[in-house]
Amino acid sequence: MNIAILTFDGFNELDSFIALGILNRMKGQGWNIQITSPTPEVTSMNGVVIQSQQQLEFVQNADVVLFGSGIYTREISVHRETMSQLVLNSTRQLVGAQCSGTLLLAKLGLLDSLPACTDLKSKPWVIEAGIEVVDQPFIAEKNIATAGGCLSSQYLACWVILKLAGVDAAKSALHYVAPVGEKDETVERCLHAVQRYI
Amino acid sequence: MNIAILTFDGFNELDSFIALGILNRMKGQGWNIQITSPTPEVTSMNGVVIQSQQQLEFVQNADVVLFGSGIYTREISVHRETMSQLVLNSTRQLVGAQCSGTLLLAKLGLLDSLPACTDLKSKPWVIEAGIEVVDQPFIAEKNIATAGGCLSSQYLACWVILKLAGVDAAKSALHYVAPVGEKDETVERCLHAVQRYI
Repeated sequence: MNIAILTFDGFNELDSFIALGILNRMKGQGWNIQITSPTPEVTSMNGVVIQSQQQLEFVQNADVVLFGSGIYTREISVHRETMSQLVLNSTRQLVGAQCSGTLLLAKLGLLDSLPACTDLKSKPWVIEAGIEVVDQPFIAEKNIATAGGCLSSQYLACWVILKLAGVDAAKSALHYVAPVGEKDETVERCLHAVQRYI
Repeated sequence: MNIAILTFDGFNELDSFIALGILNRMKGQGWNIQITSPTPEVTSMNGVVIQSQQQLEFVQNADVVLFGSGIYTREISVHRETMSQLVLNSTRQLVGAQCSGTLLLAKLGLLDSLPACTDLKSKPWVIEAGIEVVDQPFIAEKNIATAGGCLSSQYLACWVILKLAGVDAAKSALHYVAPVGEKDETVERCLHAVQRYI
């Protein structure tokens, strides 16, 4: 299973790395989760420099593509060279977006008329792109999912595992990352937010 | 405010980056949060290479030192050169640890006889180091705090902001990262776990 986590300059660390950490609980089952970027290195919104693991063309044959979030998403959404490389097909790929990443899904035409989640700051831009924004952490329809608020990236990761590996695998991954003493309630909260959309 | 997030090879991405992201909500108030490592680059437990922002000696004059977690913590805990550089003073510094990071606090003698939190995998090692491990996500006493389970790194960050900037600043930082539609309950859950130790 090849999974791209799209991560651009100015990226929000929580949005890329919470999903990456949870999805890597499936590494033992052959899942291959890759930070995917237009450049060999990207710098986070708080100045952390990381090495990308894949170039943008990786998304074309990935099984799952998750759009991270960041402070330059509006600029990226009008950058023709970058956007033209994001050739996705939601009939054969799972596609998810976190916070401002929802704007990129909208601009790529992937949301069509679906309502979507995003963060409070990105909300006016997503509405401006013609999308209805709902006041909840997560929503999905068929192979497209969106999440709003950094910590809801756990819901996006949960959705991917639920769709591709089932509920026991999702529970196990969430149980591992959940706070000690709050594991069962954390797993339940995630499943409650996500499972109705499977 | 200088804050070191100790991040070693094999680090857990959630443990370093959730704290980093939340604490950076205080960037506008001059807080300086730095990934601090023994080498210019470190590779995460899932193969992500990041650039360190500070060398280990940065911890000696930091206001806050948070120990991240990772898959090589036991090896680090017996690595004399690394451990000898971790010269901390909990009378003038806040010191926190996440998951296996608690083992390093124990080995440095910083926990003394305090009970501590850690993750389920590190628990036997921490007990072996003579520390009582409690079945809860977070515990603190004076200037020392420990947390167990990746997602409880939000509690460690909350504790630092509560101690140094007060409850309104902590609420604001948590509100920003919380899932949309679950913001109030997320803030409440954090404060409930942490505030009794302030």
